[in-house]
Amino acid sequence: MTRQTLQLPASFARYRADIDGELRSAVNRSDLALYDMLNYHFGWVDGEGEVSGGSTGKALRPTLCLLVCEANGGDYRKALPAAAAIELVHNYSLVHDDIQDDDRERHHRPTVWSVWGKPQAINAGSALRSLAGLAMLGLVDRGVAVESQIAAQRLLEESCLRMIEGQYLDISYETRFDVTVADYLDMVGRKTAALMGCAAAMGALLSVGEGEVMQGFRRWGENLGLAYQMQDDILGIWGDERDTGKSCDNDIRRRKKSLPVVYALEKASPEDRAALAAVFGKERLDESDAELVLRRIDALGARPYAEGLARAYSERAAAEVGALDLPLSWREEVTGITRFFVERSF
Amino acid sequence: MTRQTLQLPASFARYRADIDGELRSAVNRSDLALYDMLNYHFGWVDGEGEVSGGSTGKALRPTLCLLVCEANGGDYRKALPAAAAIELVHNYSLVHDDIQDDDRERHHRPTVWSVWGKPQAINAGSALRSLAGLAMLGLVDRGVAVESQIAAQRLLEESCLRMIEGQYLDISYETRFDVTVADYLDMVGRKTAALMGCAAAMGALLSVGEGEVMQGFRRWGENLGLAYQMQDDILGIWGDERDTGKSCDNDIRRRKKSLPVVYALEKASPEDRAALAAVFGKERLDESDAELVLRRIDALGARPYAEGLARAYSERAAAEVGALDLPLSWREEVTGITRFFVERSF
Repeated sequence: MTRQTLQLPASFARYRADIDGELRSAVNRSDLALYDMLNYHFGWVDGEGEVSGGSTGKALRPTLCLLVCEANGGDYRKALPAAAAIELVHNYSLVHDDIQDDDRERHHRPTVWSVWGKPQAINAGSALRSLAGLAMLGLVDRGVAVESQIAAQRLLEESCLRMIEGQYLDISYETRFDVTVADYLDMVGRKTAALMGCAAAMGALLSVGEGEVMQGFRRWGENLGLAYQMQDDILGIWGDERDTGKSCDNDIRRRKKSLPVVYALEKASPEDRAALAAVFGKERLDESDAELVLRRIDALGARPYAEGLARAYSERAAAEVGALDLPLSWREEVTGITRFFVERSF
Repeated sequence: MTRQTLQLPASFARYRADIDGELRSAVNRSDLALYDMLNYHFGWVDGEGEVSGGSTGKALRPTLCLLVCEANGGDYRKALPAAAAIELVHNYSLVHDDIQDDDRERHHRPTVWSVWGKPQAINAGSALRSLAGLAMLGLVDRGVAVESQIAAQRLLEESCLRMIEGQYLDISYETRFDVTVADYLDMVGRKTAALMGCAAAMGALLSVGEGEVMQGFRRWGENLGLAYQMQDDILGIWGDERDTGKSCDNDIRRRKKSLPVVYALEKASPEDRAALAAVFGKERLDESDAELVLRRIDALGARPYAEGLARAYSERAAAEVGALDLPLSWREEVTGITRFFVERSF
């Protein structure tokens, strides 16, 4: 935890308390036991319902939203309901993803489904989704014009649907060996980049309104999202488990078509591809299978390729912001975040 | 199919084509394979993606919405996006329910998860949920005032959350033997009645706006929803499988705390309750277990009790409408629907 906090850009600390406060009041609408699952998921209580250490997760998306709002001269407090809604949508996807991927741990803690079972965890995710919708309606109470509220609602709904489309593609790729880097970019563009782009665009929408600036920030967020996912894929194979909170051979053993694997499959000789397909085609992948895959993709240069592509998308993100007219101090802050997205080790 | 259509009140036929058209255009936003699952779920295509017989389901909720809108002098076409959104939310819950309950069939067809697997079926349900949100935004394009759109959005979001709370309670009851009729009413009030109440209230909101009339229709819909679920519970045990499309011992074997079972558990002697608990506590319930439960709950008078309570809620619903000022022909139509909800055999 300490190691993580040290490396997060300062903007994350600045908004953290406000984001947590907004999230807590959005989530805790009732004392029905259903809500215990949500409080547990956010790390606010432990499995027995006792008050716990604190929030899990980096709150990247709401931070992007608030930062962009303020960088454009807006009052970030007006955007808090939307920032919370975006984080709720993200967490809805995490709770359901853990079910879909059969993941028993997240951030070194048992996932919601592994405590409450899959049927109830589906309800937990769905509740977060509804709470996001209700949070959005709070924009009007903060003085956002009804027309802007509706535009914000549309932005979030469309991004949420794209995220689900991406999740669909991601799972459908697990049984395919002909996934190309282009397919990968299409999938991540939906699964991860859409909601990041939404977060950044939302901050602009709620400060300067719809238009070119909003589209620029949307593209910034989308490119950041692509870079972020690529870095995630790299860490999912070569990262330090103590930093990421995830087992490193997990992505390989889950047959995830992460960028290094997709690149390796695309670049492989027919012989290499057959060897990889034979491993991925097995009923169960054990540690030695994962090692074999790792050796092959290392030999094919998948790591430097993935790192290079992540950097390229981070640079595209930086260029999007460079083209916008921002006060110097905000430009520096936005640049710092852009860099963080590919330099992080967690 | 023919038997069903004959028994549905005339209002269902009147709106059916409009509802289907609205649903189809709300769902078919993309040719991504994800949307094949949705088209299959609605019965528009078969498992191979070939155009199929037609829509499954009775479209009760959108019909209530449009009928109430018109009965109050509104233009039902303005309410179509909301009617479709409510039906999408209902179907989102069905797709996820089938996963949660491990149900392999619905309307005599394999469920989405039993064709595409549970991980992708979660995505199918979630996509329907997002499409509902997007459908709601279509209200503005039909000339609904932005303030009314936001009120409608709030109504749907709150009802959707209550529905999920009810689904949570329903599942949590499966492992409990101390569920009372009061607990049952609380659960069904959320799981089924909230969205029915929302449908009726929505029709009023989009014709006469918020106020007493809307609240009256909301209570009408909620009471109808309670009666409907009770009738569903009765059919789930004593109904004709050819009519309902569901296996009759299924509810018992799934340990569902349906009204007859809850009543029997509450009314049972300590000896009877122990016998029922012993059966429900078994790892797997077979046909003979289901028969044993059926005999006990029959002996305790659970069927006439449940039928009486369903009728009582149907009468409450009728009284709510009776208190409202409606043109005679509409009053008769609304009364016909109220009666249908407890007299149906499917």
